[in-house]
Amino acid sequence: MTVTTSSLPIPAPREDGRRRKARRTREALAAAALELVLRDGPDEVTVAAIADRADVARRTFSRYFGSKEEAALDFVREDGSRINALLRERPAAEPPLVAYRRAVACWLTDRDTPASHHRPGIRALLALLDGDPALFGAYQRIRVDAQAESVAIVAARLGVDATRDPRPAVAVDSAAAVLTAALRMWAGSAAVAGPEGPDGPDGPEGLDDLTALVERSYDALMAEAAHAAGHEAESARRK
Amino acid sequence: MTVTTSSLPIPAPREDGRRRKARRTREALAAAALELVLRDGPDEVTVAAIADRADVARRTFSRYFGSKEEAALDFVREDGSRINALLRERPAAEPPLVAYRRAVACWLTDRDTPASHHRPGIRALLALLDGDPALFGAYQRIRVDAQAESVAIVAARLGVDATRDPRPAVAVDSAAAVLTAALRMWAGSAAVAGPEGPDGPDGPEGLDDLTALVERSYDALMAEAAHAAGHEAESARRK
Repeated sequence: MTVTTSSLPIPAPREDGRRRKARRTREALAAAALELVLRDGPDEVTVAAIADRADVARRTFSRYFGSKEEAALDFVREDGSRINALLRERPAAEPPLVAYRRAVACWLTDRDTPASHHRPGIRALLALLDGDPALFGAYQRIRVDAQAESVAIVAARLGVDATRDPRPAVAVDSAAAVLTAALRMWAGSAAVAGPEGPDGPDGPEGLDDLTALVERSYDALMAEAAHAAGHEAESARRK
Repeated sequence: MTVTTSSLPIPAPREDGRRRKARRTREALAAAALELVLRDGPDEVTVAAIADRADVARRTFSRYFGSKEEAALDFVREDGSRINALLRERPAAEPPLVAYRRAVACWLTDRDTPASHHRPGIRALLALLDGDPALFGAYQRIRVDAQAESVAIVAARLGVDATRDPRPAVAVDSAAAVLTAALRMWAGSAAVAGPEGPDGPDGPEGLDDLTALVERSYDALMAEAAHAAGHEAESARRK
């Protein structure tokens, strides 16, 4: 078998021993927090139990996370950083909505840095959000911060000031809202259908396939916007 | 002067004495919470001080609100209810994005039931959100709940099941994201410019005029979507 250079995974930036150790500690704490929150419910989990499970001291936890919710949602925060890294790499010719949509598609299908939606726990975690105010607040904080970074990236692409020109925020926030809506439907369909779904692993009407659902949702945004623009042009013509 | 029936304000549903008293108590508590949160900062305000200011007993507060943040943000919750009531009244022929946009425009310009953005405190309150986790969480809760209701209204208009068809959530969440982005810019421009703005009451580039900013933001969404659809059609053609 011949492996061409271009098919090799892009090497990650060099990481010294200390950074690698810090990254692994963070990952161990996040994995322990997610596992315990899903097993026992967010209210029952303590920071001490998370630290214990990750085999680190209690005070080590506070060096990485401000709360157990933040730790359990660290994979969601990573998704946001990954989407923003991919957004920065999109060709300058792509309009903001296209660039955001394609960054999301790359994140969902990347095999080298798997998106957290491959982790079965993430879907269950998203389904828990609505019932737990602290988890909900932490999730919204992560979402709003990631979107603020996306707005800055898009403003730089367009060469405009995002505090005066609404275009970067409008493009990012509507594109991100479509992703969030798709994630909510995806989490909700699992909650309704159970882990295997009523029709087997693919669930009802393919809602279990997040990548297909996200594509369908972006297509719906384009169709809705075209429909709205057509309607507004027609009502302006009639006046 | 002749007043035709259709130009008269729609009468509010009849309210008996007990309901009217409950509404007034709620309004007094919400106004007191907003005033104290803005004067002293969210951390310094107690439920007891809010009840005292509104001239009701401490236990009365708990009958209306779960927290001081919920009380201070009650005007935001009312805005959501009002937008949803107006969305229900939009003609069936309007596409969802148009219906939502026009419901928002009616809410912003209605003189009979003034939107809370006429209250100077609301802008200062929105500018406080990012720095206060409890206020931020309560705001996101109100926003998400109002949008869930909008999604149900749009799904009923379209005659589809919103748990399986992404169109209602995509239309509502993107349209609501545009409004939220405009509100954030509006609050931010006041924070930067001060109450009177550097160029007087209208502020820099008209950002102080929320109605104009919201219209400009919806126009930006339509333009971005058309730009994106054109780009995607072009890249599909080249393949």
